[in-house]
Amino acid sequence: MSEAQELHYVGTRPIRPDGEEKVTGKANYGADADRPGLIHGVVVRSPHAHACINQIDTSAALNVEGVYAVITAADFPSRDGISAGRKRFFENIIAGDKVLYHGQPVAAVAATSVALAQQAADLINVDYTVLEPVLDMQAAMSPDAPLLHDDLYTTGPEGKSDTPSNIATTTAISKGDIDAGFAEADVIVERTYITPMVHQGYIEPHACTVDTGTDGRVTIWGSSQGHFGIRDLTALATGIDTGDIRVIPQEIGGGFGGKTTVYLEPLAVLLSQQAHRPVKMVMTREEVFRATGPAPGTVNRIKIGAKQDGTITAMYADLLYESGAFPGAPVGAGGMVIFAPYDVPNIKVEGKEVVLNKPRVAAYRAPGAPQSMFAGECAVDELAQQLNMDPIDLRLKNAVKEGSSASYGPRFKAIGYIECLEAAKAHPNYQRALAANQGRGVAAGFWFNAGNNSSAEVHVAESGMIQIVEGSPDIGGSRASMAIMAAETLQVPYERIRVRVGDTDSTGFCNTTGGSRTTFATGMAVINACEDVVGQLKQRAAMTWGIEADQVEWVDGEARPMPGVNVEAEPLKLAKLARSFPKTGGPISARASLNAQGPGPSFGVCLCDVEVDPDTGYTTILSFTTIQDAGRAIHPSYVEGQMQGGAVQGIGWALNEEYLFDENGVLQNPGFLDYRIPVASDLPMIDTVLVEVPNDTHPYGVRGVGETPIIGPLPAVGNAISRAIGVRVTELPLSPPRILAAME
Amino acid sequence: MSEAQELHYVGTRPIRPDGEEKVTGKANYGADADRPGLIHGVVVRSPHAHACINQIDTSAALNVEGVYAVITAADFPSRDGISAGRKRFFENIIAGDKVLYHGQPVAAVAATSVALAQQAADLINVDYTVLEPVLDMQAAMSPDAPLLHDDLYTTGPEGKSDTPSNIATTTAISKGDIDAGFAEADVIVERTYITPMVHQGYIEPHACTVDTGTDGRVTIWGSSQGHFGIRDLTALATGIDTGDIRVIPQEIGGGFGGKTTVYLEPLAVLLSQQAHRPVKMVMTREEVFRATGPAPGTVNRIKIGAKQDGTITAMYADLLYESGAFPGAPVGAGGMVIFAPYDVPNIKVEGKEVVLNKPRVAAYRAPGAPQSMFAGECAVDELAQQLNMDPIDLRLKNAVKEGSSASYGPRFKAIGYIECLEAAKAHPNYQRALAANQGRGVAAGFWFNAGNNSSAEVHVAESGMIQIVEGSPDIGGSRASMAIMAAETLQVPYERIRVRVGDTDSTGFCNTTGGSRTTFATGMAVINACEDVVGQLKQRAAMTWGIEADQVEWVDGEARPMPGVNVEAEPLKLAKLARSFPKTGGPISARASLNAQGPGPSFGVCLCDVEVDPDTGYTTILSFTTIQDAGRAIHPSYVEGQMQGGAVQGIGWALNEEYLFDENGVLQNPGFLDYRIPVASDLPMIDTVLVEVPNDTHPYGVRGVGETPIIGPLPAVGNAISRAIGVRVTELPLSPPRILAAME
Repeated sequence: MSEAQELHYVGTRPIRPDGEEKVTGKANYGADADRPGLIHGVVVRSPHAHACINQIDTSAALNVEGVYAVITAADFPSRDGISAGRKRFFENIIAGDKVLYHGQPVAAVAATSVALAQQAADLINVDYTVLEPVLDMQAAMSPDAPLLHDDLYTTGPEGKSDTPSNIATTTAISKGDIDAGFAEADVIVERTYITPMVHQGYIEPHACTVDTGTDGRVTIWGSSQGHFGIRDLTALATGIDTGDIRVIPQEIGGGFGGKTTVYLEPLAVLLSQQAHRPVKMVMTREEVFRATGPAPGTVNRIKIGAKQDGTITAMYADLLYESGAFPGAPVGAGGMVIFAPYDVPNIKVEGKEVVLNKPRVAAYRAPGAPQSMFAGECAVDELAQQLNMDPIDLRLKNAVKEGSSASYGPRFKAIGYIECLEAAKAHPNYQRALAANQGRGVAAGFWFNAGNNSSAEVHVAESGMIQIVEGSPDIGGSRASMAIMAAETLQVPYERIRVRVGDTDSTGFCNTTGGSRTTFATGMAVINACEDVVGQLKQRAAMTWGIEADQVEWVDGEARPMPGVNVEAEPLKLAKLARSFPKTGGPISARASLNAQGPGPSFGVCLCDVEVDPDTGYTTILSFTTIQDAGRAIHPSYVEGQMQGGAVQGIGWALNEEYLFDENGVLQNPGFLDYRIPVASDLPMIDTVLVEVPNDTHPYGVRGVGETPIIGPLPAVGNAISRAIGVRVTELPLSPPRILAAME
Repeated sequence: MSEAQELHYVGTRPIRPDGEEKVTGKANYGADADRPGLIHGVVVRSPHAHACINQIDTSAALNVEGVYAVITAADFPSRDGISAGRKRFFENIIAGDKVLYHGQPVAAVAATSVALAQQAADLINVDYTVLEPVLDMQAAMSPDAPLLHDDLYTTGPEGKSDTPSNIATTTAISKGDIDAGFAEADVIVERTYITPMVHQGYIEPHACTVDTGTDGRVTIWGSSQGHFGIRDLTALATGIDTGDIRVIPQEIGGGFGGKTTVYLEPLAVLLSQQAHRPVKMVMTREEVFRATGPAPGTVNRIKIGAKQDGTITAMYADLLYESGAFPGAPVGAGGMVIFAPYDVPNIKVEGKEVVLNKPRVAAYRAPGAPQSMFAGECAVDELAQQLNMDPIDLRLKNAVKEGSSASYGPRFKAIGYIECLEAAKAHPNYQRALAANQGRGVAAGFWFNAGNNSSAEVHVAESGMIQIVEGSPDIGGSRASMAIMAAETLQVPYERIRVRVGDTDSTGFCNTTGGSRTTFATGMAVINACEDVVGQLKQRAAMTWGIEADQVEWVDGEARPMPGVNVEAEPLKLAKLARSFPKTGGPISARASLNAQGPGPSFGVCLCDVEVDPDTGYTTILSFTTIQDAGRAIHPSYVEGQMQGGAVQGIGWALNEEYLFDENGVLQNPGFLDYRIPVASDLPMIDTVLVEVPNDTHPYGVRGVGETPIIGPLPAVGNAISRAIGVRVTELPLSPPRILAAME
């Protein structure tokens, strides 16, 4: 795009093409696939959080009339001699000789109905030796704690431990001289913050339908954040070549990081192979809570020192993240983001992740960041209080900008953090007077954003309509944003563009939709393919006019001879060119694949006003403002939607959500009645402010926008409540009993 | 492909990937699609062959509980002011104010079951004024014949007629001086040949399922010879933009030209739009016979003159083809092919197509050619008898070869007709002695073959498996032939290649599979895309080694530095390169679209030995040999399959098949019990001889092979029977009663 080009479509707000079908229920989600001869699969799950499996007797289940297949780990490729990491991936799909959390799969059954499959599943007899569950990180790290894995050694910057441990990894970031930094400080705040294990709370449970061809090829219909990822992980789990698995994406009813891996798919593949029938598996809500990947609970100690003028001299964090049963907690990312907004010379972060007899954690929107930044941003707020400074001014004084060296290493290119802080400060919601029992919280959020591999194809129909195929599921309106970028590049109306999410056999490879990468990376593939189409259209016009392609320009959706080219030629509109494709060389399509570099990080700032009822401890959110640098917003409404959605999830995390385990490691609240996520009536309208500092590695300046918005709400709510009640609260969720306790 | 390159995969006979699923019934055909909320559509058809529609009362049908939609022509876009051709296309889908054949659609109903829809359909009251049907071409051409269309004027080389007529078009080919040619002749044969209307007899009836999105977008699941064609014709019929219709191809259970147009699809679209539900429509066998497109009956007068030495001096034909209710009979093609095998200086062909109150004809394998060449090749056989020459020698004496000017205009490039004749003459089946009541027939066949638009995409999976997507339905093993050509181009094993037939949104435009174009044109797109992949693989290897891409060669499925390039580098196999794609620039895919030129015509020669029972007139085929120039056979078994299948269809056409209408224009034999197609027990093994004269416009030398094989069997069987009984038979089918009559 030329710098001077005026944008016609980028920044507009057309209706998303998938909207009406999703609203009316016509859209097909994970559980909506059907096939002739379909049967149903259910999972047999461990009733213990920690136990050895001595034997599994499936004979009674297999004898039930209407049961087609029963599988255990023994039906999968052998786990002998494979890497520990790969073995743990397999174990989380179906346990071998040990179960490590309540709800872990141990067997699966396929039968003509769900009820019959469940009846047969109940006949499967598993002989367990129950072990003591490890449910608390401090206990897990004690030298005499029971070990979850006898082959898990701590790895980290200092190498590998000599003996097995429940500490899976350690991580460390260091910059400057942390001790010297604290020595310089006039004021030091230090406090430990605790966050619970929480679930992404997507509305749609995991579901898939699998059919196996007589040639061994497998087709999977399912909902996920990335069907190529589902393909590749199912291939890994089953030993089938990736090229022999086709995943057809269904619409996705929420994922937020939780639908980036496989749970049911490998089980359904083996059931289908044994049954010679298509198999559908759909989790119950309870299974989703008990046995998919929540976000880790954390315990994070923060220490920050500053001079009296607000110059922060040192920032330290000691992070502790729960992995659940298998390693994989995002403590590294948590450590990289926690101090990212601060241009401070002396920073040190240490972190550990600890395995426990709980479900293995998975990604949840900005994985690892809300927990650490809750701690960090609450500590900065406390610092502002101690310095008697406006918390925005304190942040402005220490803010990173273009050219700053990030706490985690690289130098920032153009970023919009200061612009966000200034927008926050100027916002009417920051000016409103507060009454008794009210408080105002401020907090920043930061996420790296990702690039990675994406592909797209563009076909020009003979009517001149543009058909785009790409491999990123549409989670937050990406069909619309792809169409907008294509409209801009091709200079044809948005209404003439159709975007399809192609299956894994029908479109080029796309990495999973995560890390806020899709509009950036898949968008770039779409733009590149559209530019190729424009080049071809110019060639066809040139051929028609008997001139060279470089004598043709593409303006307003039509080919024109370049000014000064001496030829009698009426402009050729796309539709007219399209009708003549057979005469001018055949159909026009184009494609692009890339590994997108330079995604551009995104900063955000949240403002939150609360009122706390002193009698009940109940918190009312009076106003919530989310401000974010979105690069250039391709479709502002859907960027605002991401910001609002992230805010709501963050508020839920801050106020209500938590996994409650009993002493045996059994989750006590595996349903939306007891696991309370915010609903519309709990919240005010979330106010949004888009800051647009274009990311110059993307043709239209896109930054990822999906993750940053969930981070700020945790500390913003925490800070608002702390200021409202005059006591610093340090443990989430800030539920009424906990606030009452703090006030007492 | 370099001339010297040795072929590793082209010419091998691997198992087709779709074979087992098709044999076991697991494959999904036109009627196998299902959708949540599916309802069923049926068609109300005219009980008259010729009538005016005064009024249609659908109210009673609409009142039936469970009926969701009832449509008539009034629900379609208006036909006022549109071109006559377009109007006739619409009328054949659903009649407006006149019906022109028994079985023509007049309304359609959708309801919760087929039975209920049929019950409601029976309540639709159509008020007709019955007209005299026109069922015979001679009668139709008489000046006082009732006119089917009051706006149909004869068009042809002499312009447009002054008054409406049942003669739709005339055609003419002329070369040299036909009168002078006959004046030179020592011997002249002249005779009129008659062929009946016949059906392609595909096993799978027409079927489709249509769903309409709330956004107006339409999805069609169906079986056809070209889902892009179904898309475009449905768009034309309904007024929906092509870009808003997605056609997902199901497997096809036979088409042979008959599944190149739409019958049910536009009806199902309108029913689905009205019902807001997915609608499935499946024809009964009776509907297929009565109301899809058979091949035209013809009456063809032939006159051939030759010198005593066998030099043919003049060839004349007067062709008369039935169009059925609407123009479209392939008399032009019939005229172009009839004398194509003969290098004769004086040729004249005249032709007419005539509308009748019968179903509109459609393409059937080499459309128009079996009928005219039955006449032409029988006449040549009679000439051979009169000259007392071997019929192969007579043909060899007059055969076209490379450089000959074809009867229909252009000069032939490399062709294999003489090679076919020589193979026929040398074949053991031509040497066998004949007994009493036995006869041997020889005949040639010829088809142009087509190129047209095709596209293909190729994706390289991270496992190194190759995934090809193309838009041509797999009718005769094209998945296998595409995989073979890809294997050859990429030099990777056939087993590592997967081919998918993509839907209209997911792959570039491909014209309908017809004209024997797919292996040629779509194959060329696959080859081009694979060559692009090879180029990209070389670049990645070059990048890895720090050399230039043109210093890399691709041999045996791996990249190697060119001999003489001074670099330390181990060859990089495809699988290894594929694993590193993310590090070397992203995924590798490629695509190609083209309008393929130079398909290369195909000649064939058939030998047939028969024995005719003098008491019953029953003919036994003793042996049948089909010899054809296939260019280079990519997968010889599937070329032979095409030749054998064409032979069997041609034998059926020669011996048994015919549409039998009563005096009201009602088909009397609309089922396989009374419309007799040959089954395995009727026939000997069909012997095949592949002649391979490569077509040098295709990288691997492909010619189309699917149409030519059906042509020769009609005259070969006719000539064999004529020689067996000593009387020249001139009318098909050569059923026992007709042969008995001829012998009497």
